[in-house]
Amino acid sequence: MIKVGIVGGTGYTGVELLRLLAGHPEVEIEAITSRSEAGLAVDELYPNLRGHYPGLAFSEPDPVRLAACDAVFFATPHGVAHALAGELLERGTRVIDLSADFRLKDAEEWAQWYGQPHGAPGLLEAAVYGLPEVNRDAIRQARLIAVPGCYPTAVQLGLLPLLEQRLIDLDHVIADCKSGVTGAGRGAKVSSLLAEASESMKAYGASGHRHLPEIRQGLAQAAGQAVGLTFVPHLTPMIRGIHATLYARLTSEPGDLQALFEQRFADEPAVDVMPFGSHPETRSVKGTDICRLAVHRPGGGDTVVVLAVIDNLVKGASGQAIQNLNLMFGFDEMAGLQAPALMP
Amino acid sequence: MIKVGIVGGTGYTGVELLRLLAGHPEVEIEAITSRSEAGLAVDELYPNLRGHYPGLAFSEPDPVRLAACDAVFFATPHGVAHALAGELLERGTRVIDLSADFRLKDAEEWAQWYGQPHGAPGLLEAAVYGLPEVNRDAIRQARLIAVPGCYPTAVQLGLLPLLEQRLIDLDHVIADCKSGVTGAGRGAKVSSLLAEASESMKAYGASGHRHLPEIRQGLAQAAGQAVGLTFVPHLTPMIRGIHATLYARLTSEPGDLQALFEQRFADEPAVDVMPFGSHPETRSVKGTDICRLAVHRPGGGDTVVVLAVIDNLVKGASGQAIQNLNLMFGFDEMAGLQAPALMP
Amino acid sequence: MIKVGIVGGTGYTGVELLRLLAGHPEVEIEAITSRSEAGLAVDELYPNLRGHYPGLAFSEPDPVRLAACDAVFFATPHGVAHALAGELLERGTRVIDLSADFRLKDAEEWAQWYGQPHGAPGLLEAAVYGLPEVNRDAIRQARLIAVPGCYPTAVQLGLLPLLEQRLIDLDHVIADCKSGVTGAGRGAKVSSLLAEASESMKAYGASGHRHLPEIRQGLAQAAGQAVGLTFVPHLTPMIRGIHATLYARLTSEPGDLQALFEQRFADEPAVDVMPFGSHPETRSVKGTDICRLAVHRPGGGDTVVVLAVIDNLVKGASGQAIQNLNLMFGFDEMAGLQAPALMP
Amino acid sequence: MIKVGIVGGTGYTGVELLRLLAGHPEVEIEAITSRSEAGLAVDELYPNLRGHYPGLAFSEPDPVRLAACDAVFFATPHGVAHALAGELLERGTRVIDLSADFRLKDAEEWAQWYGQPHGAPGLLEAAVYGLPEVNRDAIRQARLIAVPGCYPTAVQLGLLPLLEQRLIDLDHVIADCKSGVTGAGRGAKVSSLLAEASESMKAYGASGHRHLPEIRQGLAQAAGQAVGLTFVPHLTPMIRGIHATLYARLTSEPGDLQALFEQRFADEPAVDVMPFGSHPETRSVKGTDICRLAVHRPGGGDTVVVLAVIDNLVKGASGQAIQNLNLMFGFDEMAGLQAPALMP
Repeated sequence: MIKVGIVGGTGYTGVELLRLLAGHPEVEIEAITSRSEAGLAVDELYPNLRGHYPGLAFSEPDPVRLAACDAVFFATPHGVAHALAGELLERGTRVIDLSADFRLKDAEEWAQWYGQPHGAPGLLEAAVYGLPEVNRDAIRQARLIAVPGCYPTAVQLGLLPLLEQRLIDLDHVIADCKSGVTGAGRGAKVSSLLAEASESMKAYGASGHRHLPEIRQGLAQAAGQAVGLTFVPHLTPMIRGIHATLYARLTSEPGDLQALFEQRFADEPAVDVMPFGSHPETRSVKGTDICRLAVHRPGGGDTVVVLAVIDNLVKGASGQAIQNLNLMFGFDEMAGLQAPALMP
Repeated sequence: MIKVGIVGGTGYTGVELLRLLAGHPEVEIEAITSRSEAGLAVDELYPNLRGHYPGLAFSEPDPVRLAACDAVFFATPHGVAHALAGELLERGTRVIDLSADFRLKDAEEWAQWYGQPHGAPGLLEAAVYGLPEVNRDAIRQARLIAVPGCYPTAVQLGLLPLLEQRLIDLDHVIADCKSGVTGAGRGAKVSSLLAEASESMKAYGASGHRHLPEIRQGLAQAAGQAVGLTFVPHLTPMIRGIHATLYARLTSEPGDLQALFEQRFADEPAVDVMPFGSHPETRSVKGTDICRLAVHRPGGGDTVVVLAVIDNLVKGASGQAIQNLNLMFGFDEMAGLQAPALMP
Repeated sequence: MIKVGIVGGTGYTGVELLRLLAGHPEVEIEAITSRSEAGLAVDELYPNLRGHYPGLAFSEPDPVRLAACDAVFFATPHGVAHALAGELLERGTRVIDLSADFRLKDAEEWAQWYGQPHGAPGLLEAAVYGLPEVNRDAIRQARLIAVPGCYPTAVQLGLLPLLEQRLIDLDHVIADCKSGVTGAGRGAKVSSLLAEASESMKAYGASGHRHLPEIRQGLAQAAGQAVGLTFVPHLTPMIRGIHATLYARLTSEPGDLQALFEQRFADEPAVDVMPFGSHPETRSVKGTDICRLAVHRPGGGDTVVVLAVIDNLVKGASGQAIQNLNLMFGFDEMAGLQAPALMP
Repeated sequence: MIKVGIVGGTGYTGVELLRLLAGHPEVEIEAITSRSEAGLAVDELYPNLRGHYPGLAFSEPDPVRLAACDAVFFATPHGVAHALAGELLERGTRVIDLSADFRLKDAEEWAQWYGQPHGAPGLLEAAVYGLPEVNRDAIRQARLIAVPGCYPTAVQLGLLPLLEQRLIDLDHVIADCKSGVTGAGRGAKVSSLLAEASESMKAYGASGHRHLPEIRQGLAQAAGQAVGLTFVPHLTPMIRGIHATLYARLTSEPGDLQALFEQRFADEPAVDVMPFGSHPETRSVKGTDICRLAVHRPGGGDTVVVLAVIDNLVKGASGQAIQNLNLMFGFDEMAGLQAPALMP
């Protein structure tokens, strides 16, 4: 049993950590912090947790108590982990940050997209980008994990085999992504109201989105060179789920695309390659840490289409964070992440 | 480990059994039958099960193979269990029927509501109504279980304390119930299309619904006399969930209503009494076997309002069926039923 | 052509006035005010209006400009009309208030429910409760209209015939109401987020809701005495619509209930009595000023059930406001309100 | 006043014709046919029409009665108009076909995609493709109109300016389209159930969809040569609406893209070009005949992104059919199509 803390537990990724960890055999919650809700029982805010964490309440963030944990998750807005991670790491506590604070390797690029200076550039070198399908060995040794964003997870997993094999035109890759509304968090925004977001579909950030540099960084690493990506996210009238539809132009005859994908992910417990020409549904991964993929080559032409679905709150956030935790502490990689999706 | 079979596995309650049993430590699936889909892998119909039941396919119902199971679930339309249950029971296999076939004790009343003669009246005496909160001891000894319907479960649990204590006017009880669309099953009906049922609310069966005699039978047993019930179900634009709003007129000063409910369900693992005046949400029980209750007495008057929520596919069907199985075989009553609700 | 102003136009009832008035042959918009959005074009906030109101922008409330209107709608939170209505009335402008400011005849009761003193008790006597089905003649002469609330409209219309004929037990009437989320307005509240309100059903205000005294006042007027009402509203995962399910106990043999309802509403252009035993759907009135009703008498017993559906933003607010305007100015009562509901 | 008939009126495009024509000043319904529902009042199937078409019932298709109409709409599955259109045309009745029967100019290509021989190849030459933004003059003279499909309308309108000016790589155009479920019609299919299609997003037909040849035909005409199109439609959990996200690679510096689009559609009553960089929402056109467009050029690079939204049942079907009717009979082009979208 290890002890973990959660900083910023009132948002959707915080409660999702609690939901998933309720079934984890090796973890107990030592503290969950929230400045705004300190003192409130977690199951008063999230009644689905009634009976699962008796006595657990949100508390003011207390560095001493957090440092007594084996690992601390940050489920916070950007900037918060910058301020606190260093102290925890010095005291020997491992940090798993679900925010964007340590995802970009370039502190200046971070500052540009987030409109403020990077608060802990000295930690960037030690931070490991927590995509197990790329960095599993480094994750096992890591003390500071930057959990990938939701869109970046889906897009990278869908493109990795094509990029690593250099099969496509690297200047013109398109990621058309559709996300449920929890991607916008639990903040009270008019645009996220049921009355505004339901029964409608719209793009947003088509001319620039904060996940763009993160995706580009990941794609470039896989391809060994810069990748020209057009990324258009869309707000979809559902609670959870991301559907990434990825388009690339083949530059050489690729051989058996299906075999390529199956082999690339053969040993990956969180990636499921469906039969060629399938159409994965986001609901098939709802509540789970699985990324489900399918490959298409319409009309046998030179365009390859990859369909990738994840649950933005699980494989796109809290589930992947736990997958990282499991690797860091030598647990079964999918401990706490085994339940099938809720369907229907 | 026991072996179980599922007859009629392609519907929502069938797949829900598979979803829940995937995490059950004491059960393995021996067979899942479907005449229409025989030969099809279960995870082809329900991709959320990919990786959980490798090799499991729907098969033609084979009495010999089913009789080799310790228990068989019927997740079938009414009438099917009538025909098959007897043979299985004779061979020593226990039967847990999720359909309406054995819920009514009176075969003639059954025939009236279902428009066909009862096919196995000889089994009615042995059948135990599988509401653990009322019949736990009988369930432990039972060989044939009639799993309660979804509406009957919510309505009975919400009214039991008031009926058992004879606190209310038994001639005028009202159950206004709201159900998600999975209550109508997986059949391809126009009225269940997203385009028809979404963005709308309507009552149905206000002048008579098949669950009415079942509810009345249960209420009468609790009250020790017939209960005059008005039951109006409503179709709600959501996938899962039942919200029962129950109205009764107090005939004597009831004392502490909250204490009454808390005491009645103090030892019930599947019933959660919330603080007085709470408003339980159906999503707080989504995917779980929990019935969450709250009691109101508006304006301190003589009307008591009970709010009860369940997931119609879990506590209202497959989860309750497993709860019965657990009792019958001496497992932890909530084995396989422990995960918190998916929320948001 | 008359000139109208709208105070507080950024909320859902404000934009709904614009949507409906776009097709009104006798009305032009002189001004639409909003302190927070002054200067913004209305179609920038509501792109559905692009092309319909070229050049119209929200403006600071200017009493002189408003007083130049023939009529002014208040689509504001409670309290605002208290402050402004008097001045407009003095200058000869008629006021149609969609808020709760003038609905209750008793200023002290208002103060109790709204937690602040009534700001214009001197206007209460002149204010006419704008339910055309009850007060048509008074509305025609009125200078100040209190447009009924959404729940009160549905509940009163459904109960009027029973109350006026004194057919039911007046001490135990139950109104179980289900509303779409626009009933909560356009405010940015966590509880109204799609991620919170979708895929769930819950009651709220079961122990007391601000519409309760308004409903009671209306029921008492119809019955000629106080009516004991239990009112439980529910939040339903849809954008628009109210479904009221009304339960009453018959105290004498009522004769032909269907005829009673049909006769009561025979000349009402905004009330549609469906055949006996029908189940009206909220979507059948979406976007329209119609209240659709159906009567049930389950099992021929002593309980009558009335089902009433309206669009909370139209018959429950802006449409009814326009219906009042039409009556006040001698237009066709349903001018601008003729389009069929959008279905599917 | 002209008399129109509707063949196949029970589906979504049939009832949408009725909804829109209820407000058309120049049209009266002479007959609406349905073999399966003959004798049923239209407002029994679609209660939103109660009060709008008193006495109108579905009737058996009767060629004589239909031929007495000035125009007949076919809102039928493919193949039906093949069989009946010729006779009506011979008798002088104009035909507006909402199905796919006359959209493809090549009868063999039609036979290939629809799996049956073309039933009226002799009429193909006279058939006019009813996209007013391309064929307005021909529509005015036409006697047989093939109303464009929903996806083809959105995709063509979004790409026309780029194709006509030959600004893009014609070999690699991508149309990522998202549609509400009414695109699948009113048929009772499991995949269209609320319980299946809600809370999920999926692609379908990614390797080939019947709208593909129609779109290619239209794009080729605009470009003056064949266009290599990848078209991936997605099922979106909403009732109405199509969002087309269109990607093309610029082959030369395009100048002012916004001005290009604004000029192209300056005189088009059914196309609204939003400011550069906008994100149109499908709900902003719900119930209307408007196509709303916005242009993006992410990062100023060589990829242009066009966002186009329509209501699949209106501009994508019944509204566009009426727009054609208006042109054919010299009415105001937007008669009956003026109401703003229902929003929220």
